[in-house]
Amino acid sequence: MSAESDFIESLRALATHPAARGLADDAAVLEIGGRTFVLTQDMLVEGVHYLPDDPPADVAWKLVAVNLSDLAAKGARPIGVLLGYSLGEKDWDEAFIAGLGTALGAFAIPLLGGDTVRGAGARTLALTAIGEAEGPVPSRSGGRAGDHLWVSGTIGDAGAGLRGLGEALAERYRNPRPRLEAGARLAARVRAMMDVSDGLLIDASRLAEASGVAAEIDLGLVPLSEPYLAALGDGPEARLAAATAGDDYELLFAAPADLAAEILALQDELGLPLSRIGTLAEGRGLRLANGGKAVPLPPRLGWEHRRVPG
Amino acid sequence: MSAESDFIESLRALATHPAARGLADDAAVLEIGGRTFVLTQDMLVEGVHYLPDDPPADVAWKLVAVNLSDLAAKGARPIGVLLGYSLGEKDWDEAFIAGLGTALGAFAIPLLGGDTVRGAGARTLALTAIGEAEGPVPSRSGGRAGDHLWVSGTIGDAGAGLRGLGEALAERYRNPRPRLEAGARLAARVRAMMDVSDGLLIDASRLAEASGVAAEIDLGLVPLSEPYLAALGDGPEARLAAATAGDDYELLFAAPADLAAEILALQDELGLPLSRIGTLAEGRGLRLANGGKAVPLPPRLGWEHRRVPG
Repeated sequence: MSAESDFIESLRALATHPAARGLADDAAVLEIGGRTFVLTQDMLVEGVHYLPDDPPADVAWKLVAVNLSDLAAKGARPIGVLLGYSLGEKDWDEAFIAGLGTALGAFAIPLLGGDTVRGAGARTLALTAIGEAEGPVPSRSGGRAGDHLWVSGTIGDAGAGLRGLGEALAERYRNPRPRLEAGARLAARVRAMMDVSDGLLIDASRLAEASGVAAEIDLGLVPLSEPYLAALGDGPEARLAAATAGDDYELLFAAPADLAAEILALQDELGLPLSRIGTLAEGRGLRLANGGKAVPLPPRLGWEHRRVPG
Repeated sequence: MSAESDFIESLRALATHPAARGLADDAAVLEIGGRTFVLTQDMLVEGVHYLPDDPPADVAWKLVAVNLSDLAAKGARPIGVLLGYSLGEKDWDEAFIAGLGTALGAFAIPLLGGDTVRGAGARTLALTAIGEAEGPVPSRSGGRAGDHLWVSGTIGDAGAGLRGLGEALAERYRNPRPRLEAGARLAARVRAMMDVSDGLLIDASRLAEASGVAAEIDLGLVPLSEPYLAALGDGPEARLAAATAGDDYELLFAAPADLAAEILALQDELGLPLSRIGTLAEGRGLRLANGGKAVPLPPRLGWEHRRVPG
């Protein structure tokens, strides 16, 4: 086991409250007085989750978006956020605040509070988001053999954007859109849901692992955008790159097969594609196909420990 | 204005939700469905809020205690915490987790979730605490001229402990006890309340400033512990040192004069001294006396921007 997984195991021993969901779920789910609150906290570290010369406004957007994406995956609508901020260079700080304002405005979410500290060394930013779910809160672990595996939006754009493959793709990397409305609408229909942050394949294997089943994914079904196809084509390598790139912040969910028509019908209401990419099956692990033909797993399914490239 | 106060001004412009209380209050107060939740997030930065060779268990305790102290000052009882953790050396991480378990156990508070990241440079630790208040939630700004100014416990012990003046005092520095029970009992009685973290004088001047009044404090009334008196005596310098040392995590509150007897009666129930140290008065600023005789303000009232000594 890595130091990180050892550490998380030790933390898990402290997280015995049912709201913690065994720390397996990217968010805490707190039932109070007949209402359901969802709490999530994510940190971004300079040099690990973003580059020192990334535009501060993009870092602010990402900090907000990654937390809201965790709420989206729980079907929760955001109530507000708290910021933990290490002060650094004045220009950077000012541009960050302006970007934070833009991001919070875009999602109509208030800043509720937080803490500002003098930094030392690499900047560390923390955000806590609190939201409320109006129905059941899906976990990663509810999937069953036979469920269809779905994904929202298109996959791989952010990864291609990071590689400098065009403005439309770069925009997906810089300003990911957490799927809040989709998450809230899907929550009551899915058996398991999470967001895709580290790569579709690694996140799907985590959902399957938590659910005690296998995931079968057909790369040919993974939804790719027009700009992605224009930049990288539709070959097996391009499809594999999309499915392992990460930073998508789309929703990955497992739903009973008999809800397929209902889920497809949601697309129009949401204005967001929902694509079936595979199936959960008996067994363990991830099985990959492309156009119905089995293909071997790539050596890397996504990001194990996030570190920015470069 | 400093870069930090500029930054906080800019943040304030984003914090327009009533729950944010204008970022003036160390905690967000969220009214939902007839219930009142209090949220606070504090960060500790290595080299700024603690020393690299401080015992990790003490750092964990402090991280929990500073957040719970913010809840105490709002009269809220804790529901749980979320941890944001930068991984570092394995031994340090393990000792931190053990200490976190001790601290959470001591206050019977569950770990609800959080985020673990690969660190880079100085370690930054974040904790978010959520609590619930059963009655009114005091702010810093409700004090009025004529109110009595009170403080819980004894003042200056932690500062003396940090200076190596004996084990009992060091214990106050290492393991501060947030005054949760006192805060919950006092909340409905006080007009303004906050915790003393940066120094009694600076924190009292902040409460007065937020309330639009002046604070008059008599150093002769500041409660000192037996170990403090034994180590430093009862002279004016010792009293001033106590009132400017910080890290007390006691409650500072303003209450109507006619509640004095009621507040004194609470001491026995709480097993915690509650001492009147002065009065709020018309005007602005801080006026200091010692044994009824005016004394000049010291050049430093407490910690403006926390940085560990050394």
